[in-house]
Amino acid sequence: LSLSETSASLRELLGPDRVLTDGPEFRRALQDGTGNRGISGSASLFVEPASTAEVVTAMAFCYENDLPLVTRGGGTGLAGGAVPDGGVVLSVERLNRVRSIDPGLWRMEVEAGVTTGTVHRKALENGLLFPPDPGAGEQSTIGGNIATNAGGPHAFRYGVTGSWVTGLEVVVPPGRVIRTGGPVRKDVSGLDLTSLMIGSEGTLGVVTAAWLRLVPAPESRGVVVGIYEDAGTGCDAVAAVMAAGIQATALEFLDRGALAASLGSFPFDCPAEAGFAVIAEADGTASEVERMVTELAEVLSAGAIPPGDSAAPGFSGGADGAAAGILTIIGRTEADALWAWRDGVSYAVAAQRGGKISEDIVVPVERLGEAVAETVEIGERHGLEACSWGHAGDGNLHSTFLVDLADPDQMVRGKAASDELFGMAIRLGGSISGEHGIGSLKTAHVRQALGDTVVELQADIKRAFDPKLLLNPGKKIPLG
Amino acid sequence: LSLSETSASLRELLGPDRVLTDGPEFRRALQDGTGNRGISGSASLFVEPASTAEVVTAMAFCYENDLPLVTRGGGTGLAGGAVPDGGVVLSVERLNRVRSIDPGLWRMEVEAGVTTGTVHRKALENGLLFPPDPGAGEQSTIGGNIATNAGGPHAFRYGVTGSWVTGLEVVVPPGRVIRTGGPVRKDVSGLDLTSLMIGSEGTLGVVTAAWLRLVPAPESRGVVVGIYEDAGTGCDAVAAVMAAGIQATALEFLDRGALAASLGSFPFDCPAEAGFAVIAEADGTASEVERMVTELAEVLSAGAIPPGDSAAPGFSGGADGAAAGILTIIGRTEADALWAWRDGVSYAVAAQRGGKISEDIVVPVERLGEAVAETVEIGERHGLEACSWGHAGDGNLHSTFLVDLADPDQMVRGKAASDELFGMAIRLGGSISGEHGIGSLKTAHVRQALGDTVVELQADIKRAFDPKLLLNPGKKIPLG
Repeated sequence: LSLSETSASLRELLGPDRVLTDGPEFRRALQDGTGNRGISGSASLFVEPASTAEVVTAMAFCYENDLPLVTRGGGTGLAGGAVPDGGVVLSVERLNRVRSIDPGLWRMEVEAGVTTGTVHRKALENGLLFPPDPGAGEQSTIGGNIATNAGGPHAFRYGVTGSWVTGLEVVVPPGRVIRTGGPVRKDVSGLDLTSLMIGSEGTLGVVTAAWLRLVPAPESRGVVVGIYEDAGTGCDAVAAVMAAGIQATALEFLDRGALAASLGSFPFDCPAEAGFAVIAEADGTASEVERMVTELAEVLSAGAIPPGDSAAPGFSGGADGAAAGILTIIGRTEADALWAWRDGVSYAVAAQRGGKISEDIVVPVERLGEAVAETVEIGERHGLEACSWGHAGDGNLHSTFLVDLADPDQMVRGKAASDELFGMAIRLGGSISGEHGIGSLKTAHVRQALGDTVVELQADIKRAFDPKLLLNPGKKIPLG
Repeated sequence: LSLSETSASLRELLGPDRVLTDGPEFRRALQDGTGNRGISGSASLFVEPASTAEVVTAMAFCYENDLPLVTRGGGTGLAGGAVPDGGVVLSVERLNRVRSIDPGLWRMEVEAGVTTGTVHRKALENGLLFPPDPGAGEQSTIGGNIATNAGGPHAFRYGVTGSWVTGLEVVVPPGRVIRTGGPVRKDVSGLDLTSLMIGSEGTLGVVTAAWLRLVPAPESRGVVVGIYEDAGTGCDAVAAVMAAGIQATALEFLDRGALAASLGSFPFDCPAEAGFAVIAEADGTASEVERMVTELAEVLSAGAIPPGDSAAPGFSGGADGAAAGILTIIGRTEADALWAWRDGVSYAVAAQRGGKISEDIVVPVERLGEAVAETVEIGERHGLEACSWGHAGDGNLHSTFLVDLADPDQMVRGKAASDELFGMAIRLGGSISGEHGIGSLKTAHVRQALGDTVVELQADIKRAFDPKLLLNPGKKIPLG
């Protein structure tokens, strides 16, 4: 079929307002969150089905006419998973109904295009919490979060997106609706296809709706921040929190470079510069938060820089027996301000040179210090400034090289630095991706990370779902 | 190959002490926990490899010689998943090393034959908790718990076994070792093969070792028990706990029949008979437990039977403002006594008639009352006493028909009653299995539960891992 025939057919099948072939929305659909590293793709058509039945129609058409189909959520992905390479881009953003919410039963059913921010708000309005918070909540969709099994700071205690999904509605080739799991919290009647779909980045089917599990929202939150001379001392503090058996809800870090880029907008009094920061959060009742914040402050104060008289008025000087060098932030609103700042660190770092090449490697938590130091060293070897921040307790680093997107040489060196980074993650016993996924950016490293047998098994599973290999081709799963 | 040739070859490959063809251990390997409903199988050989390399050897031999291979843990499974139908039974019980434990990093690596009780103890000795507690901890192996994705009372807060497994070592056909995940807590570098293996009941590979995630052990535990006239009032109390937003760690129930069978050994003072019991647990610091127990007691006392002067001295009469009709049990040891009793309920029920046909259906939690009532009605229609107990908060019922194993007519009626039960679970929007798995007992109901497309996808996945269909044939995954 020619493009105009394809377009005419899909318009007839889905309605004229569901199909675009140009314009700003069409052009936006050629990029995702990797736009800031200069990545964009191409497509023939953009379709926006508004119901599961329309997704079935679109997929059946693509399958019949051998058209590649790339599914897209809010376009905030960081691995190029939604960047098309020809074919049809299917956006789930019109699948945006909250199908049901049962506050007394701690669950909701939402369509894939509902934003993560909406899920959070709907839960909170009902006294409940949907814990995963991968960031960009107002843009990213729950479908995209499911497609990547997105994480975020609070995964340290609460787990990643997949921990909160009990069931899925999925359209699989050549255009059939399946349901996996459901509104029940336990189900071993089949292979765990729910988990198989979660994180599969649109390569096995199109997730159209999900059953989400919720928990009672904590009454209060408290955050403790410690500032350290260097990564070694800071990573010792991270280890000390775990060794003390304190179940923080989040246990984050920023290294020297990430702090230099972001401390200017820190919403509380803090030192003008710092070598390493550790951020730990506790939640629960007001009294539980008070107790845990005291414990966290005590542990994190060991090795923390005691503030000067004027340098960091927000940080405790250690008078009256308080833990020295520690900022404590109590209350949900106050904690929200801290997390809003934290959510912006990525943008602050990107603003340094105009662009960044940022990955999401994972290492066993005891190797965190090595990974932080090696990130900087790898950057130096390639003549690039580098920094890292991320989810210390999960050993998940956003290792980042600062680049000028307009400088092709820097981009080449950045790519080489990334390659070394993935090698380091594998060498340290970790993973090349903790939360962004493989997308198009990391497929070349998957075989080294997972080994030949796993790569073959994945390819066979892919073929079982998508025999024509039309769903998000070239992403996530290396073939042959 | 003849049996004697097969046996001689495997003895030569694995060592003479690794292979049995008769004797008590061999005969034990023909049954699992479904022995009490009269189920047993047949096999040619029993092998007990003591290392992953020996598992590879055994599988390669089976695959080369077209021998079915059934993997076996502690033999406590309740769906016939480890009952062989010819071929080789492979026990993982000699794979019993704790490979590593890192208390400060909240994790351990254990081989598949380590008992769940050992995992619990090793964790607790280090101030940590491995939450899944499916029961039979001293017999069941972690490998078996992984193969079934076993649950237990504390899954209500902490999730099932799979929530605590971050990585696996698996031997897949025709005899290759793969590793999925690892000691890291986040990994989206591939499809989630860890979750795909978990609950696959030995149909895709042999799990030889697992990385387990642990959490700091709570300081204290407290249990609250309420007794109600009937299932309706009791299920209202379950709903009230959730509606009050109290995150109990466990939220259990027993109906009239289950209580009649088990109250005689209840380790605390209680009424001589009761229509329905709700058991809720809280954990945390001593003060948190105290607060939550007070809240739980208040909610559960609504509708609870107020005890007479002498009937139930352990239960509060409501003096001094205490919640009436409620038993509270504070402290880890005291709570352990309650859970040891709870773990024995299944045996107490089986003792009523010598045998029981007990399933593990799941319904959306708001349908719990219906499912409890219908279980009894289904039993009546088939002339069998019936009762249920289980994980109320997860909507997971052990719906049970009491039978005399020696009475073939009762066994036939029990089977027919079970079939109706599965139909009810599907009709109410639930699952035919919450924690026991499909095994050989429920494969006939899988297509009705999951639908044709999912059944086909499962079969394709099975073929990708096990092209000769030799791993635990006839179990879990219906083929063709």
